Parts: sequence; structure tokens; C-alpha cells
Amino acid sequence: MRCFQAQPQLNANGELIHLLSIEGLPKAVLTQILDTAGSFLSVNEREVKKVPLLRGKSVFNLFFENSTRTRTTFEIAAKRLSADVINLDIARSSTAKGESLLDTIANLSAMHADMFVVRHSESGAPYLIAQHCAPHVHVVNAGDGRHAHPTQGLLDMYTIRHYKRDFTNLTVAIVGDIVHSRVARSDIHALTTLGVPEIRAVGPKTLVPGDLREMGVRVCHDMAEGIRGADVIIMLRLQNERMSGAMLPSAGEFFKNYGLTPEKLALAKPDAIVMHPGPINRGVEIDSAVADGEHSVILPQVTFGIAVRMAVMSIIAGNNA
Amino acid sequence: MRCFQAQPQLNANGELIHLLSIEGLPKAVLTQILDTAGSFLSVNEREVKKVPLLRGKSVFNLFFENSTRTRTTFEIAAKRLSADVINLDIARSSTAKGESLLDTIANLSAMHADMFVVRHSESGAPYLIAQHCAPHVHVVNAGDGRHAHPTQGLLDMYTIRHYKRDFTNLTVAIVGDIVHSRVARSDIHALTTLGVPEIRAVGPKTLVPGDLREMGVRVCHDMAEGIRGADVIIMLRLQNERMSGAMLPSAGEFFKNYGLTPEKLALAKPDAIVMHPGPINRGVEIDSAVADGEHSVILPQVTFGIAVRMAVMSIIAGNNA
Amino acid sequence: MRCFQAQPQLNANGELIHLLSIEGLPKAVLTQILDTAGSFLSVNEREVKKVPLLRGKSVFNLFFENSTRTRTTFEIAAKRLSADVINLDIARSSTAKGESLLDTIANLSAMHADMFVVRHSESGAPYLIAQHCAPHVHVVNAGDGRHAHPTQGLLDMYTIRHYKRDFTNLTVAIVGDIVHSRVARSDIHALTTLGVPEIRAVGPKTLVPGDLREMGVRVCHDMAEGIRGADVIIMLRLQNERMSGAMLPSAGEFFKNYGLTPEKLALAKPDAIVMHPGPINRGVEIDSAVADGEHSVILPQVTFGIAVRMAVMSIIAGNNA
Repeated sequence: MRCFQAQPQLNANGELIHLLSIEGLPKAVLTQILDTAGSFLSVNEREVKKVPLLRGKSVFNLFFENSTRTRTTFEIAAKRLSADVINLDIARSSTAKGESLLDTIANLSAMHADMFVVRHSESGAPYLIAQHCAPHVHVVNAGDGRHAHPTQGLLDMYTIRHYKRDFTNLTVAIVGDIVHSRVARSDIHALTTLGVPEIRAVGPKTLVPGDLREMGVRVCHDMAEGIRGADVIIMLRLQNERMSGAMLPSAGEFFKNYGLTPEKLALAKPDAIVMHPGPINRGVEIDSAVADGEHSVILPQVTFGIAVRMAVMSIIAGNNA
Repeated sequence: MRCFQAQPQLNANGELIHLLSIEGLPKAVLTQILDTAGSFLSVNEREVKKVPLLRGKSVFNLFFENSTRTRTTFEIAAKRLSADVINLDIARSSTAKGESLLDTIANLSAMHADMFVVRHSESGAPYLIAQHCAPHVHVVNAGDGRHAHPTQGLLDMYTIRHYKRDFTNLTVAIVGDIVHSRVARSDIHALTTLGVPEIRAVGPKTLVPGDLREMGVRVCHDMAEGIRGADVIIMLRLQNERMSGAMLPSAGEFFKNYGLTPEKLALAKPDAIVMHPGPINRGVEIDSAVADGEHSVILPQVTFGIAVRMAVMSIIAGNNA
Repeated sequence: MRCFQAQPQLNANGELIHLLSIEGLPKAVLTQILDTAGSFLSVNEREVKKVPLLRGKSVFNLFFENSTRTRTTFEIAAKRLSADVINLDIARSSTAKGESLLDTIANLSAMHADMFVVRHSESGAPYLIAQHCAPHVHVVNAGDGRHAHPTQGLLDMYTIRHYKRDFTNLTVAIVGDIVHSRVARSDIHALTTLGVPEIRAVGPKTLVPGDLREMGVRVCHDMAEGIRGADVIIMLRLQNERMSGAMLPSAGEFFKNYGLTPEKLALAKPDAIVMHPGPINRGVEIDSAVADGEHSVILPQVTFGIAVRMAVMSIIAGNNA
């Protein structure tokens, strides 16, 4: 993991030029992103006015791994900023003719790209791309392997700040399939930087890595202990498609032990909010009564996600390497 | 079918907020759409000036069933209105991760969508979506199962009005594979509302449902009887891909009995127009001499279709639920 | 090949209305394209300012053969000109429902298309389309079979002029798989028209057609003879995917005889430039030390390609048939 640090996300003035990971970002930069996102939403929290901040810029969506949902949110955010958006289905491109990843990146840089939004199944791929692309290109990590998904982490922080105002008195429980989740890692780094005093990782031993304790996280294998008194509950999707054999809990068993029901939710603070990065599995990690209930802020998360992605893109586009 | 009526297309003021079906639309609304379409075409019938009516709005093309042709016409229409267009290949999206249709719709609504253009193989799907999407989202049905294809029906009405001026003296013959056609149903509703006195459904017993008589349609199994004296002939595509076994006529036999040749066309009025929703099967339902002949208005239909889709989108975007 | 000439690329005033092939284009038109491309790049050779020359125009990318790289460059160029771009995956369109190519083209013309960018595996397809589309539609050949790839040829000319200023004293060597290359053909026509005194085609007998001599080209099967004293070396990609059996050289053998290494490059002029249309096969036709070395202008070619495509599109859009 250390090699990832080799590529700075900040320039010599401490300004953000790529967004590769929340790890290592100073609190001032996190706050700048959240404040900027808020400015896009200020007039009307449902609507985002189109602004000309990226007019004439070209944003390339480089999705080496398919994710219609994430690709769509970046496409919308870029178009709201008046950028030109080029969607590239990399699996079908010149890499199939034997061209290397770095040659593809060099060529795309030369096509007047201003920004690459990168999704890749390999951890670290966006770092490699940031190291090798032309200096005028900015890179945003849209999810790499199990490593990071920084814009999801940032929209989670925006959501928490929106509903809770202050981070310094919160108990945040992250529940479920943490081991396969790049969201969990990004959230833990951000919550730590923003000063959250109690972060809990809740789930069965097979799905919660013990080394999270080294990051200051309280690991709970008991659901009641995990969510008792929580201000914020972040439920994660059970990623069945990444598990096999003994590791894979049955959906019924998982729901019984860790699925968020109204009964379990009653253990949290009365004004607790329930978050989920989506897509949700109803009846697996979350009960429909909770997902659609008054504590749920799952759909506002989606709306905030557009504003946060606009904030990241407009900030990095304004800073020079 | 009754359940489809549960979702009103009109708000309390009688203004159009979704376009789900031509059935149930008052004549005033149909006329408003045709008049608006005409305003986009008024300067030059071949060209459509780009207008800023949907600037800053996001139109999502949700195609659950592939149709490059229809998707393209909506994409062009939306871009002519200066909207941002997001094309979603739903088969590859989160629904593949087990997310339900309604959760997908809720998420897309939360992404600042202003309009969904929906194509689905299941009849009624656009109604379900209109019932469950956020109140700020407008839905346009771009074809659902065998049920309806309202913008095709509307462009057919625009074409007829363009060439014939008045609906109240016309004889309109719809010929061919009516049972599989969502276009035929939309046309019959529109023609009836607009006051066409004689609507004929022409074709073999296997392809013309007898219950059309209950809608006031004259059913003709004899081609000569069906097109004699007609002002307008709407030929339909033989949808071989939806038929099997005994139902499927041989292309040669079908052409002999119902294919529109210059000889058969001579039975219609001397100034009859020939329409077809496309794509045409030359030598199956229509002879090339007719498709490319002076009575054919098949290509103007395509041009008018852009203007009609612009009209629908600009009208519904201006009305609040 | 003669039939291709039947479709004029020029109108009665000698102005360019389609770009189908470099063959037959007068020197004045070639120079106009290069000068126009230069005007888009003049302020800053890395960046291209967005200009409103095609605002309100619709450019359709009709790719009957997949080529993400070429499609992307045209999409970027069109968007830089402020056009609306419609990408059509033709393999999935109505042609799959049995519609003929010419009916598809007629329909797309009727959808207010202003320009078709056509890629097709069959030589001559863009000519057929230009002959049959509506008079208001302009056609750009983005590669047809083994026949032509005129915008690649033009960007090669732009690159040579940029580095060498004058064509009339140059020795240009085109090296490698010439028989499968539509680029080589386009380059030879352009170099001839622009007055290059020595054009060499270099490669094994199986890959260099002897009839190039009739075009005034010097055919060299010996690499040293071929590149000695050259000002410009255009390396071509070994198109393994188009070869079979005896024709196919082993990559190792090919590299040994014709791969461009620093040693072989030393035979050329000291200020020689090395070009390649990409994607490159490192260690097959070109050594990494050359591809990434100081003589290489492979990445600037990509940048110039955007400006050249902008030039072609803006020029033809301004001329009437």
C-alpha cells in the first residue's frame, strides 16, 4: 500500500490536484470539498443549477470495470459543470489490440483530456495512471479494487455533516461486509480526519478485518453492542459476488444477525440516521421498513453525491500540478 | 388495462405532466402538442433550430429494451432543446446486482433527473415508473410491450394534419400486423379523438384482433375493400420476430395479399399518402416502388418525429405535478 | 476503385463537401485543411479552445466497425466545435431488423443529421453513403476496409509540416505492413500531391505491394536502404489480426528485420522524426527506446489529429452541395 503514497494528490502549495484516496488528505481539504459541494446545493437541496466552471474542458470516464450507477453520477456532475464528457468503454478499446494501459493513457492525455475519472478492478490503478499521465490531466478515483472509493466517502461525510452539523461528538457504526468494501475504508479515513471520537466496525468475524483496530476503530461482532447509542449507522451491501464457500453467509442468517430492522434500530439514538451506499439488498442487510423509514437518508445521499463530485472536479480543475 | 389509468397524465389543471398513452388524452392536449411541434418546424421543415427550452435539465434515456432508432430520435430531440442527455443501458446497470426496478428509479430520480424516457418490453412499465418516481420527474413512454407508443402515434397525427389539414373527412386504413403493433393502438386512439370518421384495420384474421370493432374500427380482411377510397394508408411492419408457427405468414404470401403495390395503391384516393413507422421490409409489406414513390411520406414522418418529441418534452417539463 | 471516383468530394466551386479519400484532392484543399487545423492550435499547441462553429449541428458517428480510439477523436473534435454528437452502434440498430444500409442512411438523414462520420469494414461504403444521403448531409470517411483513412493521412501531413515546414525536399519512408494499411495509401496520395520528391515503401515482399511503384513510390525490401537519409519515418502497426498462415511473419523475425531500433534509426537524417498511427506494438515494429525517444512525434500526432478533424468538419459544414 505504501507505493500508493508515492503519487501526491496535493501540489507544492497543498492544493488538491488529483483525488486518489481520502487517506492522507488534510482536514482543510476535506472541509473545502464539503463547503464547495454545499455551495452547489445552497439554493435548493433537490436541484443543482448548471454552472460554467468546466466549460470547454473534457472529462473522460475511463471505466475498466462496469458500474453504470457510478459512471452516471460522474457524467451528470461533469455536465452540470458544463464540461464535455467522453465515455470510454475500455474493454472494447485499443487495449484489446495489445496496447498497454500506459500507452492508452498517454494517447488519451494527448487528445486534450483535462480529467480522467477512473474505475478499475485493481487496487492502485488510478495511482499508476496519475503518475504517468500528462501534467495537465487530473485524475479522480471512482473506485479501485478493494482499496478506495473516495467520492463515496466524501458524500457520506457531506451527509453526516448535513444532518449532524458537527463531527466531534458522534458515534458512527459501519455495519456488514466491511472486508470487501472500499467504501468502509474511505469512510474510516475521513471520519478519523474529521475528528469523530467513536468509529465502530460491526459484523461477523469473516467480514470485519481485525486490523481495523490499528486504525482506532472499535470492532464489534455483536450487532446490539455495535449500534447501541449510535448517531449514524452506515449499512454496507453484502457483496455476494465477491465471496465463495465458507466465507459466504446465508442471506437469512446474515439478516437475522446483522440486518437492520426497526427493532435493532431502536437501540441507536432516537435521531440516528441510516445510510447505505447502494444498491441495497432489501431483506439481506436492511429491512424495507428501515430503508424507506424516517431515519433513512439513503436517497439524499445520492443527491449529495452529485454535488460532492461537482465539488471535487471543479476544485482539482482549478489547481495546477 | 384499467390499472394503467390509475396514473393520471394530467395535473389538476388538465395540463400534461407525463406522456404514457394517447388513450385518455383530450383533443385540446393533442392539438397543443401538434401546434407546438409545428412551431419548431415553422421556419424550415427540414431543419430544427436549437432552442434553450430545456437548458440545465437532465433527460435520462432508460431503455430496458434495445431500440437504437427510437433512442436516437429522443436523444436528438432532447439535445435540440439544449438538455443534458444521459443514456442508460439498463441491462448492464445495478438491476443486474439485484436492485429492484423501483429502487433503481428512486435512485435515478435522486440524481437530479428531470425526465425519464422509458422503453420497456412489459406493457405498463412506464405507468409503474410514473407512479413511483419523485414528483419533479416527468415520464415519457417510448414504447411498452404491445401496449402503446404514443410519440409514434403523435407524429403520425402530425404527418396526417400536415398533408390533409383536416381530420373530420378522412378515411384512414391501417394495414398489416396490427395485433403486435403498439403503434396501431396509439394511432386508433388519436384518430378517434381527433374526429376521423372512418378508421379501417386491414389484414389477415391472425393479425387483426376482432375486438377493434368495439373501438369503432372497421375490420377488413380483404385488402381491396380496406384501402378503397382511403386518404391515408398506414402500413405496419410484419413483426416476424414476435410470431411463431401457424401464426407466421410466409413473406411471399403476405406480400401477395396485403403488400402495398402500385396496383393496390391505385384503389385509394388519387392524393392518398402512404405512411410507415419504419423500419420497412421492402417486398414484404410494401413494394419499393411505393416506399420510394410520390405518395410516400415515410421520410417526412421521421423528420416530424423529432419535432413532435421536442414538443412533448418541452410541454411536460413546463408543467408541475 | 474507379467507382469510388463517381462521388465528387468537391462541389461545382471546387469546395470540399465530403471527405472520402485524399486521392483526388487538389493541393489547395489539402493546404486549406492544414492551415485551418493550425488556426485551432495556434494559441497553445496542447490545448484547443472550444469554438461555436458547429453550434446547433448534429454529428452522427456511424461506426459499423468498432474503433474506440478513432470514434473518440471525432467525438472530441465535434464537441470542441460545439456540435451535438450522436454515437450510433450500428451493429445493434435497425439494420439488425433487416433494414438495408441505404434505408438506415435515409432515416438518419431525415433526423436532422448534418454530418455522418463513417467507419466501415468494406472499402467504398462511405462513397455509397455519400451518394445516397440527403443533400444537406456531409460525410467523413473514418476508415473503410483497406481503402482509405483520410483524416489519419491529413494529420500525418500536419505533423510533417509542423516539424519540417516544407514538403519539397523531403525523403519519407513508410515502413512495415503496408498491404493491410489504409493509412499508407492515404499518406502516399497526400505526400505526392504536396510535392514530396522521394517516398519509400519499406518492408518484406509479403507486406509491400509491388504496384506501389506505379504511384511513383520506391519499394525497398531492405530496411537499411529504406531508411537511409530519411527525414521522416512512418512506422505502421503489424496487423496480425488481418493475416494468417504463410503471410504472417513471426514478431521476433519482423522486429529483427524491420523493427525500428536506435541502431537502425541512426541511418536516417540526424533530425529525422518518427511517426506511427498507433496503437504501437512495442518490440514488434518499434523499440521502446525509439517510441519514447527524442525523435518520436507519436503523441503530438494524436494532439494534431483533433485539430485536423475539427478543420475537416468545420470546412465541409460551411460548404453547400
